[in-house]
Amino acid sequence: MAPPPTQIVTLTTDFGTADGYVGAMKGVLARLAPAAVVVDLAHDVPRHDVAHAAWVIATCAWEFPIGTIHVVVVDPGVGGARLELVVEVRGHRFVGPDNGVFAYVAGAGASAGADAEVHAITSTAFRLPDVSPTFHGRDVFAPAAAALANGLPASAAGPATCAAGSLPWAPHAIGPRGVVVHVDTYGNLITNLRPAPGATSVVLAINGRLVAVRRTYDDVPEGALVAHVGSAGTYEVAVRAGSAATLLEAGRGSVVEAK
Amino acid sequence: MAPPPTQIVTLTTDFGTADGYVGAMKGVLARLAPAAVVVDLAHDVPRHDVAHAAWVIATCAWEFPIGTIHVVVVDPGVGGARLELVVEVRGHRFVGPDNGVFAYVAGAGASAGADAEVHAITSTAFRLPDVSPTFHGRDVFAPAAAALANGLPASAAGPATCAAGSLPWAPHAIGPRGVVVHVDTYGNLITNLRPAPGATSVVLAINGRLVAVRRTYDDVPEGALVAHVGSAGTYEVAVRAGSAATLLEAGRGSVVEAK
Amino acid sequence: MAPPPTQIVTLTTDFGTADGYVGAMKGVLARLAPAAVVVDLAHDVPRHDVAHAAWVIATCAWEFPIGTIHVVVVDPGVGGARLELVVEVRGHRFVGPDNGVFAYVAGAGASAGADAEVHAITSTAFRLPDVSPTFHGRDVFAPAAAALANGLPASAAGPATCAAGSLPWAPHAIGPRGVVVHVDTYGNLITNLRPAPGATSVVLAINGRLVAVRRTYDDVPEGALVAHVGSAGTYEVAVRAGSAATLLEAGRGSVVEAK
Repeated sequence: MAPPPTQIVTLTTDFGTADGYVGAMKGVLARLAPAAVVVDLAHDVPRHDVAHAAWVIATCAWEFPIGTIHVVVVDPGVGGARLELVVEVRGHRFVGPDNGVFAYVAGAGASAGADAEVHAITSTAFRLPDVSPTFHGRDVFAPAAAALANGLPASAAGPATCAAGSLPWAPHAIGPRGVVVHVDTYGNLITNLRPAPGATSVVLAINGRLVAVRRTYDDVPEGALVAHVGSAGTYEVAVRAGSAATLLEAGRGSVVEAK
Repeated sequence: MAPPPTQIVTLTTDFGTADGYVGAMKGVLARLAPAAVVVDLAHDVPRHDVAHAAWVIATCAWEFPIGTIHVVVVDPGVGGARLELVVEVRGHRFVGPDNGVFAYVAGAGASAGADAEVHAITSTAFRLPDVSPTFHGRDVFAPAAAALANGLPASAAGPATCAAGSLPWAPHAIGPRGVVVHVDTYGNLITNLRPAPGATSVVLAINGRLVAVRRTYDDVPEGALVAHVGSAGTYEVAVRAGSAATLLEAGRGSVVEAK
Repeated sequence: MAPPPTQIVTLTTDFGTADGYVGAMKGVLARLAPAAVVVDLAHDVPRHDVAHAAWVIATCAWEFPIGTIHVVVVDPGVGGARLELVVEVRGHRFVGPDNGVFAYVAGAGASAGADAEVHAITSTAFRLPDVSPTFHGRDVFAPAAAALANGLPASAAGPATCAAGSLPWAPHAIGPRGVVVHVDTYGNLITNLRPAPGATSVVLAINGRLVAVRRTYDDVPEGALVAHVGSAGTYEVAVRAGSAATLLEAGRGSVVEAK
């Protein structure tokens, strides 16, 4: 008989890597779900930047095997009224606060005809006995991931609900006008605008500049602006060996138009 | 027969994540203890900040299963007179320099009636054959952790000794007056002051300001000061969506009084 | 029968830990090579700094067990003309762009009489079906590492070739004159100059200063310059509890002479 597949739990947080917060989550997971394999995705999400984390998880979750559990803790409202959630989309399970951090992955499911199944985390099997009001990563989200890793279904977490958290931007723009939805560590401006079928000789307008769409960074000289279809399948504006965010004074929410 | 439990080795360093130092330690562990699971806790401890690392390991070590091996390498005195240690407390093993980095975990053991058992690392089974004078993480601490992971007891490391390294602060204050013992990446001021049993309506005095103790960040508006019982069980002073360290010009060693 | 040894895949990138790029590579590895153990070496290599990454991998790769697969993605020319490579040296496999990032590990092999075997990655078994022009970490290098982890030999990647990428510095200087080849996170200046056999009372000249070679940092007062034979076996110039790079206004390429 084949061994059961390894259960993977990924971690994405804004905790940084100077404190004990990531370690505490890993300790809880090691104690409660010793057979799970814990994978660091990104711990330097800018503090409290829910939209940044939402993009990060949406651009890498689907690479993992079906059944992977993704924990995302960027949680400025911890201890307040927002719910804690397990969100199941396309066979992946997402665990984190109800603040919009899963809006892009849920949107990806919906556009593939697979609506997200959302449960509030209320069961004691998904939480530590004592839950602190300021560290749900350790006391709720890691134990919830452990419960899933140990075989409990998402529906055991608590009652079905609808995610209330949302983001100001859609993961995919309709029509030729979009916005920058993510600025990465290189200063690349990643948009929600997909190439139209058969589009050729496209030029992007952003902050009063026109940028021709090419294939890759290498198609322009160093320091020059270049647009291309990025690794997420949407248009991206970059500067070869530089920062488009700095050069264009653009950022999340900046409007981009395909011409 | 159940398989033996996985042996976990955690790593906490001030090596950062731009160089090969963490990788070299992981390579030694993979070579000498291939069955161990290596877990990153924090590699961005501020350079040479022993007290910072001591707090980090004290706030996450106990979440891990009994038997876990915790390697902490923040070691400004490497190659000098300080000893290298294996410290066993409450069933956890800690490996690192004798400079105070384990003062908080040893204190936690002592206050639970479980004194730390301390051994100097002198056995050749706990060191590489050639030990460089400047990289004991690779040449002593990783091999020592591998020896423990492979089943050797702490007592095999070398002679019993007493830890000479200490910190200026106690992990828990006696009475209503304490100090800030840790400033985290958010600028939260974490103190060694625990709530008195039954205390209500507590106000903390720090740097000439009075801060009311509430339940969580969400109980005050953005930018406002708030005190609460933090995830380590001691009082913490924070600014919602801001930095208390900056606002109060306070840091480690700042005096805090409960009123 | 003993179980097969665990297949280790290490990752070194300049992707940082705020975005989804590292996570996407880990997802591909988890999907295509579920039995492999993925180990983070360093993700904060300075952006596009091939020489920095080359030193990082050269100083930790050999600590890992024979057979380890090392993926290095510092790839400013992604999507351009440079090849993608599998490089086999001394029983280790290296996967990454042909831009010099493996020049030091290949040099270490050559000086040990073990020339590198180099293959271009052209086989479809070593790439995703759709390769984006800007993210070969996800679409080529992670799949190539997975193919190796699943047992394919380096020669299955594609035709044998010679690495075209090179670095301006040799890993080891000939004679008493060398250069700084790496500046680490502490500001230590690591040179390619090895101690001459039997050398005593050595003094290093760098940027008009003379620095005596001692055993370790602890041999000088805080803030003082010290030279020593570093953990890579070459001379290193440091400031105890400070930055030699800042104090000496020196960096990669600065000339060092042993006197």
